[in-house]
Amino acid sequence: MSLLKRAEAALQSHFQTAAGVGAPPRLQAAMQHAVFSGGARIRPQLCMAVATACGDDAPELTNAAAVALELMHCASLVHDDMPAFDNADVRRGRPTVHKAFSEPLALLAGDGLIVMAYQVLLQSGRQHPERLITLMENLSRGVGLPSGIVAGQAWECETAADLAQYQRSKTGALFVSATCAGAIASGRACEPWAPLGAFLGEAYQVADDIRDVLGDIASLGKPVGQDTLNDRPSSAQAMGLEGAIAHFDALIKQAGDAIPDCTHRDMLVQLVLLESERLVPKSMSEGYRKPSAAVVPAKAPATRSAAAR
Amino acid sequence: MSLLKRAEAALQSHFQTAAGVGAPPRLQAAMQHAVFSGGARIRPQLCMAVATACGDDAPELTNAAAVALELMHCASLVHDDMPAFDNADVRRGRPTVHKAFSEPLALLAGDGLIVMAYQVLLQSGRQHPERLITLMENLSRGVGLPSGIVAGQAWECETAADLAQYQRSKTGALFVSATCAGAIASGRACEPWAPLGAFLGEAYQVADDIRDVLGDIASLGKPVGQDTLNDRPSSAQAMGLEGAIAHFDALIKQAGDAIPDCTHRDMLVQLVLLESERLVPKSMSEGYRKPSAAVVPAKAPATRSAAAR
Repeated sequence: MSLLKRAEAALQSHFQTAAGVGAPPRLQAAMQHAVFSGGARIRPQLCMAVATACGDDAPELTNAAAVALELMHCASLVHDDMPAFDNADVRRGRPTVHKAFSEPLALLAGDGLIVMAYQVLLQSGRQHPERLITLMENLSRGVGLPSGIVAGQAWECETAADLAQYQRSKTGALFVSATCAGAIASGRACEPWAPLGAFLGEAYQVADDIRDVLGDIASLGKPVGQDTLNDRPSSAQAMGLEGAIAHFDALIKQAGDAIPDCTHRDMLVQLVLLESERLVPKSMSEGYRKPSAAVVPAKAPATRSAAAR
Repeated sequence: MSLLKRAEAALQSHFQTAAGVGAPPRLQAAMQHAVFSGGARIRPQLCMAVATACGDDAPELTNAAAVALELMHCASLVHDDMPAFDNADVRRGRPTVHKAFSEPLALLAGDGLIVMAYQVLLQSGRQHPERLITLMENLSRGVGLPSGIVAGQAWECETAADLAQYQRSKTGALFVSATCAGAIASGRACEPWAPLGAFLGEAYQVADDIRDVLGDIASLGKPVGQDTLNDRPSSAQAMGLEGAIAHFDALIKQAGDAIPDCTHRDMLVQLVLLESERLVPKSMSEGYRKPSAAVVPAKAPATRSAAAR
């Protein structure tokens, strides 16, 4: 089973169990709309890939950790799309939750998804209480104060915000949680896995800035030009488009280099490369790339050639 | 130390620790505004009172559980006050969070407080992992799907909602979590303590409906007449004012009767009576009460006379 299929299956099953019986139907539908809308599931896939590299001896816990990450991500999207922030009508080519259901239900759907993330972990972790508790700490760190994605989003409301700090929190924090969760769910130390998440998360945010300038609404599934419109910190504005693309390439290389030596290193390298191409397709960015900035995101020569295939 | 003082001290200390270092200053200020604003702290006090009755052998865990409940309650107030719901300018006599800080920060403050509730539990529960996990399940049940306070609030967005179900979820669920948390933190079964929370929670919601009709803005700290204005289900509208007050009195009696036999039963009875008077003061409701509806909220004759003092 591919990681994507495993992630989708886990999401379906955990969502149903956690929602339980008798919830307000429209709230549940709004939450489903937010979660099952063709997301790339990169955070759950990262979590599962790292778990595989760490032995994945508690796959049910890995699945729950992966689902919890995605639910937190979806909650943040629902709230970020609301009129108080981006006022976005469209997400992944479909109406946003507040457009499809109403603002009150979007507000509550986000809240419900945050709680559901913990519920999903709790319903799968009884056999590994220590791992479960560490997973919940790790998840909270990626979302809450002082430097999770909620804090990251809040840097947009400060008069002085450091671009790198903003990006590290806004997107990077949950990517770090994702790689760490894969290790923790498998009973391993998470520290060696944090840099992969950090570099990939930062790359993701830079890519978002690039696509906000370069992308077309069809491939992005949401309106372009939002950063300028909402006066948000943006790499593309700070560094120019060429600079931002070079920065993205460098981050992808650093992400690849940061993968610890492990049995499934090639699979992880492949995942990073695929994600890089999905985020900033060569066809889109070629004219802005200098020839010297070629991506070789692997550590050892043997792995490098495997990754290049 | 009174329960209220214990609750306030625990809130101060846990909030600081969970917020950590380096959070966006305005977000942290918005969260502080939401939490430290003269709330009655009834949920933490209930939790602590039940813990005392259950031996309170892990007081740090009790404190964390009490704080987590209050943070969830404050999060719900911040989001409920927003323009998408009540559009309230004032809460407890002060500007609401979105008025004092902005809508984006109110949205994020609520999200941050939900996560912080779990962070607070996690930072105090390592010594009692089983209790910690049960406390987090209990807290999630009181807030999330299918019938926590988020679901309760969402029943306002359904075309058909049962008034009792709405009230049980909207307010009752977190009161049940509060009494249960006190028992769980002390290593006891929570089931015997659920009815006290359920009756008190329902009474609280009925009182809110009554005060929405009878109250003045000074004593309530928020505008009156909101239920009619927002077309919300309300006991006062469904039963008339006299009927709602009689229902409130009956619920307070049931709450008193539901307190299990235990060492500190008198203290709990006293807490229920004080809360009853705070919620619907006799001076406010006297003209609407029938003489037969006298409140005798205790089980055994000895306790009854103690409670009546």
